Amino acid sequence: MVRKDGRNDDQLREVRITRGFQQWPAGSVLIEFGNTRVLCAASVTEGVPRWRQGSGLGWVTAEYAMLPSATHTRSDRESVKGRVGGRTHEISRLIGRSLRSCIDLSALGENTIQIDCDVIQADGGTRTAAITGAYVALADAITWLGAAGRLADPKPLSAAVSAVSVGVVDGRVRLDLPYEEDSRAEVDMNVVATDVGTLIEVQGTGEGATFTRSTLDKMLDLALNGCAELARKQAEALEAPYPYELPTPAPDKKSKGSK
Amino acid sequence: MVRKDGRNDDQLREVRITRGFQQWPAGSVLIEFGNTRVLCAASVTEGVPRWRQGSGLGWVTAEYAMLPSATHTRSDRESVKGRVGGRTHEISRLIGRSLRSCIDLSALGENTIQIDCDVIQADGGTRTAAITGAYVALADAITWLGAAGRLADPKPLSAAVSAVSVGVVDGRVRLDLPYEEDSRAEVDMNVVATDVGTLIEVQGTGEGATFTRSTLDKMLDLALNGCAELARKQAEALEAPYPYELPTPAPDKKSKGSK
Amino acid sequence: MVRKDGRNDDQLREVRITRGFQQWPAGSVLIEFGNTRVLCAASVTEGVPRWRQGSGLGWVTAEYAMLPSATHTRSDRESVKGRVGGRTHEISRLIGRSLRSCIDLSALGENTIQIDCDVIQADGGTRTAAITGAYVALADAITWLGAAGRLADPKPLSAAVSAVSVGVVDGRVRLDLPYEEDSRAEVDMNVVATDVGTLIEVQGTGEGATFTRSTLDKMLDLALNGCAELARKQAEALEAPYPYELPTPAPDKKSKGSK
Amino acid sequence: MVRKDGRNDDQLREVRITRGFQQWPAGSVLIEFGNTRVLCAASVTEGVPRWRQGSGLGWVTAEYAMLPSATHTRSDRESVKGRVGGRTHEISRLIGRSLRSCIDLSALGENTIQIDCDVIQADGGTRTAAITGAYVALADAITWLGAAGRLADPKPLSAAVSAVSVGVVDGRVRLDLPYEEDSRAEVDMNVVATDVGTLIEVQGTGEGATFTRSTLDKMLDLALNGCAELARKQAEALEAPYPYELPTPAPDKKSKGSK
Amino acid sequence: MVRKDGRNDDQLREVRITRGFQQWPAGSVLIEFGNTRVLCAASVTEGVPRWRQGSGLGWVTAEYAMLPSATHTRSDRESVKGRVGGRTHEISRLIGRSLRSCIDLSALGENTIQIDCDVIQADGGTRTAAITGAYVALADAITWLGAAGRLADPKPLSAAVSAVSVGVVDGRVRLDLPYEEDSRAEVDMNVVATDVGTLIEVQGTGEGATFTRSTLDKMLDLALNGCAELARKQAEALEAPYPYELPTPAPDKKSKGSK
Amino acid sequence: MVRKDGRNDDQLREVRITRGFQQWPAGSVLIEFGNTRVLCAASVTEGVPRWRQGSGLGWVTAEYAMLPSATHTRSDRESVKGRVGGRTHEISRLIGRSLRSCIDLSALGENTIQIDCDVIQADGGTRTAAITGAYVALADAITWLGAAGRLADPKPLSAAVSAVSVGVVDGRVRLDLPYEEDSRAEVDMNVVATDVGTLIEVQGTGEGATFTRSTLDKMLDLALNGCAELARKQAEALEAPYPYELPTPAPDKKSKGSK
Repeated sequence: MVRKDGRNDDQLREVRITRGFQQWPAGSVLIEFGNTRVLCAASVTEGVPRWRQGSGLGWVTAEYAMLPSATHTRSDRESVKGRVGGRTHEISRLIGRSLRSCIDLSALGENTIQIDCDVIQADGGTRTAAITGAYVALADAITWLGAAGRLADPKPLSAAVSAVSVGVVDGRVRLDLPYEEDSRAEVDMNVVATDVGTLIEVQGTGEGATFTRSTLDKMLDLALNGCAELARKQAEALEAPYPYELPTPAPDKKSKGSK
Repeated sequence: MVRKDGRNDDQLREVRITRGFQQWPAGSVLIEFGNTRVLCAASVTEGVPRWRQGSGLGWVTAEYAMLPSATHTRSDRESVKGRVGGRTHEISRLIGRSLRSCIDLSALGENTIQIDCDVIQADGGTRTAAITGAYVALADAITWLGAAGRLADPKPLSAAVSAVSVGVVDGRVRLDLPYEEDSRAEVDMNVVATDVGTLIEVQGTGEGATFTRSTLDKMLDLALNGCAELARKQAEALEAPYPYELPTPAPDKKSKGSK
Repeated sequence: MVRKDGRNDDQLREVRITRGFQQWPAGSVLIEFGNTRVLCAASVTEGVPRWRQGSGLGWVTAEYAMLPSATHTRSDRESVKGRVGGRTHEISRLIGRSLRSCIDLSALGENTIQIDCDVIQADGGTRTAAITGAYVALADAITWLGAAGRLADPKPLSAAVSAVSVGVVDGRVRLDLPYEEDSRAEVDMNVVATDVGTLIEVQGTGEGATFTRSTLDKMLDLALNGCAELARKQAEALEAPYPYELPTPAPDKKSKGSK
Repeated sequence: MVRKDGRNDDQLREVRITRGFQQWPAGSVLIEFGNTRVLCAASVTEGVPRWRQGSGLGWVTAEYAMLPSATHTRSDRESVKGRVGGRTHEISRLIGRSLRSCIDLSALGENTIQIDCDVIQADGGTRTAAITGAYVALADAITWLGAAGRLADPKPLSAAVSAVSVGVVDGRVRLDLPYEEDSRAEVDMNVVATDVGTLIEVQGTGEGATFTRSTLDKMLDLALNGCAELARKQAEALEAPYPYELPTPAPDKKSKGSK
Repeated sequence: MVRKDGRNDDQLREVRITRGFQQWPAGSVLIEFGNTRVLCAASVTEGVPRWRQGSGLGWVTAEYAMLPSATHTRSDRESVKGRVGGRTHEISRLIGRSLRSCIDLSALGENTIQIDCDVIQADGGTRTAAITGAYVALADAITWLGAAGRLADPKPLSAAVSAVSVGVVDGRVRLDLPYEEDSRAEVDMNVVATDVGTLIEVQGTGEGATFTRSTLDKMLDLALNGCAELARKQAEALEAPYPYELPTPAPDKKSKGSK
Repeated sequence: MVRKDGRNDDQLREVRITRGFQQWPAGSVLIEFGNTRVLCAASVTEGVPRWRQGSGLGWVTAEYAMLPSATHTRSDRESVKGRVGGRTHEISRLIGRSLRSCIDLSALGENTIQIDCDVIQADGGTRTAAITGAYVALADAITWLGAAGRLADPKPLSAAVSAVSVGVVDGRVRLDLPYEEDSRAEVDMNVVATDVGTLIEVQGTGEGATFTRSTLDKMLDLALNGCAELARKQAEALEAPYPYELPTPAPDKKSKGSK
């Protein structure tokens, strides 16, 4: 059985990474996995949350959201509903946790990097695209902080982080599911990994079905290959110079993103 | 005194209108007034809110929001704060009211068009860009509804709607203020007008200052000229065909935007 | 066509201003525009909001609300709904902005004046009555602060502020609309002005209709005359002495409104 | 020890009851216990809450609130805080329960009477003034419903309801405590009673102290005498005719308070 | 008429008190009044709420809640509804107030004892069981604080506190109503008393009926006898030693319940 | 390195399962994993949520919560905070999803089973204990529904569901982590599995670290063995008869849990 979009089972959708999409945040990346488009911004603020003050450690946190117009049929706005839904919370926490696993928070100094992942168009895999794009925005924010002379140590990032979905559809293990496959998958898994092939997070769910351990193994094979390819795309995107003028160190910390 | 961006006092910033920015909503427009970028989507749903059911009339409503990363320094997410702020409410109501003034809701049939204006990048004039772009998205949604055979009358739009800001900066009346001017304006006004030169809404505010009636008159002159030019840009943008495949009438109402 | 209440098109309803309506706030004014009755209180507290501390500047802010029993059919209580509605927010912001335009906040010292406008009975024009009455309450609070020796400069008020509605009803431009006219007006405008005839805020809206610039001009003529008359009523009301015993300066700041 | 305001221990403050204070609700009463002033409105709506529909029974419910400017130092607005406080909830429930104990809800037909008690000025005893005034507003709403021919039975009220506070201050049992006494009372009790001397509600609390049964007995003596006097004041107030024009029965149910 | 469970009118249900039900709080008591089961925990934290800091006084406060599965038919979770209901608020305030009346807050030092009463199974009288159990948990927390050397004075408790319900059912005054009786009681009263027979709180309510003063007197007789018996049960339960290892004073305050 | 509680790395804590812990829900189970104690209730209601009505399918959903007193230091009550936290949401969704994977919702008929998992005492592994106990409560609810003649098919459960945590602590892979180990684990995984050894959900997270695929494999080995043992404990517990009297089919559906 062939996939509707003509891909092989172990093939990613086309990936596009656009740095400098917005002007003000220290990092701003538009990432596309096929028709899925997520805007990932990394904003820098001096200081850390109250419970962390005086520790000498920095902080990285994330928020994920969808534009109401991003989905096939419009979804209600969470600000209007007055509460953030469970799924949104879950994904925000996943993104923050994934990025923190590859950064040395003491090297960051008492700075906070706030990641915002806003889905512009949803066609499956929004959380994995968000993680993959957020890493690139984070790397730009680190470059910006380094230029401004605000890092306690010049190399806080220990590895690159990317993520991909994998699932069982029509009885076959497939990589990077679009909405059309995701919505009828029997098993659905998201894998977050580093560019050296270690795992950060594995979340696999039987959707009204259960799955064997050997299926799990096949899914991990495909996902780790997918993450390796995404890591190459990230590295390529980061070869170009920082997309805006960089700040100069001290005494004037007045530019981009700092208050 | 010359404006920082080199414009004359009565000149608009560069305006760009991109139709079909997103795939799923019936209308989706990215509008840019210089560095201000707003994504305006028009989603169609069958039926109307409960308080309107059985009236035979349609409904048009709007929600405005900013991405946290859209502003010079990151702003907090309203969904996380758990409430929509006063400014957001005010602008959402203004957009909806402005669009409803140019549409015959009985011609629309019992359909709802939900407008979402999400600011991608903010550099002054987000509400006026939102209204101007939302009209184009609304026009596309009307085309889509017409093709689907769901309009009670084929021409519900009675005029085009556009909006522009005007203000007093450095003692001079100026059109289409960017953030740098807006933040220190003595008087600030937003004008919504039709393409035949009539007014829909006028909101002028002294910012810690008062203003004379003759200043008000000069501001209206500039604003009405600005709206006329915006109306020409809208007409130009709408000359191209609908950016996606149009539905065919009944019995299959299954495509774009309908549930 | 004659107005139902027998007034000329350019005539205000009967205006009554009662100072000292409540005992505890530094200023408390019941204002009546015909059947519309609004209680405007000005409460003084030492200090200013956190974001303003140490600036040497004072602060004036306002909240507007309706009693549930104020309207023809009972309206739900916003505290019970758990959120302040868009209209309430909008009017609260308008009142605060209007009053701040006529006060020198540095002369006020680091004191906050909180204005509360609670509508006791609503019959159109509640926001304009609120602004007009709030100015009188503010003036009394300033007198109280001056007597207590807590002003940085004895004359912080630069002008008197009043407001009135004007609209197009039955094709005619009319001043100070009661609910019966307001609910069917084609155009509706609120004008806030000073006692020297300059403008503070102009908000005009076509209600499902548009309007020409010459209609706007006629509306402004009527509104400015109306505000001039309201300014005279305010001045008259303020001729009488402060309605309660005034504090004496320092060291005992223990009386009215201070904590 | 004499009371500051010169009253005897068993004496009420001056009581004033003004019917028809507002125009729109079917009953609207301003009640004053000395400096405590509460506006009590009774609004009629057709139908009953969903959980009661089809039962043939009516419903009476109440909401209590304070204007921010009613207290010695301004209190925050519950709508702005986004939640109704515990004390407010408690008093609202007490008022509704007290009034329901004296009305035959089957005689009322499927109509709802919504009581709103809004404190204009607070000087102790606001909840007891609210109950006492609310009964008068309720009686007016019943008169209005009767005139409109909407009662299932012409006499739904079985007794008059009034309430008073009593407490131990300076070691003495005293009636109807103003704020100055209430704030330092050792024991505080509110008693709701009928005009035939039976009890509806008794709530006595030791404020950081305990009290003997004989103290309880003395408090009940004073409270029951106080309620008897309040019942006489209510009867007097209700001798005058209904303060507005009464509706005529059916088919036009379009007037006061009905939707 | 005999009671369904065979008790005499003046008889309590079987009372069981289990100390040390949970390991972490300084006091944790499961109390059972027949089928009603309430878990009462007393948690100690250093310091007091902001408004009390520097006073040298401690603080005791309480929260009451029901498990959704505690009631005959499941009740919705208040956390999911996003607000605490009026009844919950009322009972929480009652518990806190009752316990504070028997404790010398200056002897407590600047420590806070937070009482949590969570209803595991509801069969009438949950608030009175909660108060009775909470006193035992409070006594254990005091013992714990004393052992840790953190009391300003070794004996902060001036009396034991217990509570019981009493009501009129089938025309008879009865003690300690189970749900089956409570739901059809004509009069319902809760009495909180000390072990020396003085009163702390009396709350009596006619449920759609009124009651005479002599009925009130009979209810008080039964309730005071019931409280006396509950005080004996509390004393018995507290005869056993503290159920866990006690802390030793200073410098290591690291154990149970302190942060 | 030996575990503090003396267990082998691949050993579960002592597991205790008590059925019929509460009287009213159709299933009520207290499950203990060592010091972790979770009360799992399954309440039956007729009908299904609105979005599912008319489908002929039943529904199973879950809510998870902690008592404030369950944790080492007291945690704030989510009802008082007015919102359910992200972690709570996440676990509630996990429990519901896990149970739905082993039940045929069409066999259930249009009934809803609401699972409530309330943590009485937390010592690590609360979510896995909750899932394991919830399955037993669900099985009891199914028995109850079957006896009442309300199942569309007598055997809706296709497998038993249990869950266990596993992690890397002190460099060793260990099963069923108590709080003391969980709080310093480098990798943390929760596995939900059936009694036939297939997987339902796998969630593994590097806590500030990454992990290799071979570590993942070792964790899965331990977890699947742990789940197999838990499935045996569940089967044992379910050998005893239903702990209360069962209903008889129709026409009287008046008993346990149905409204």
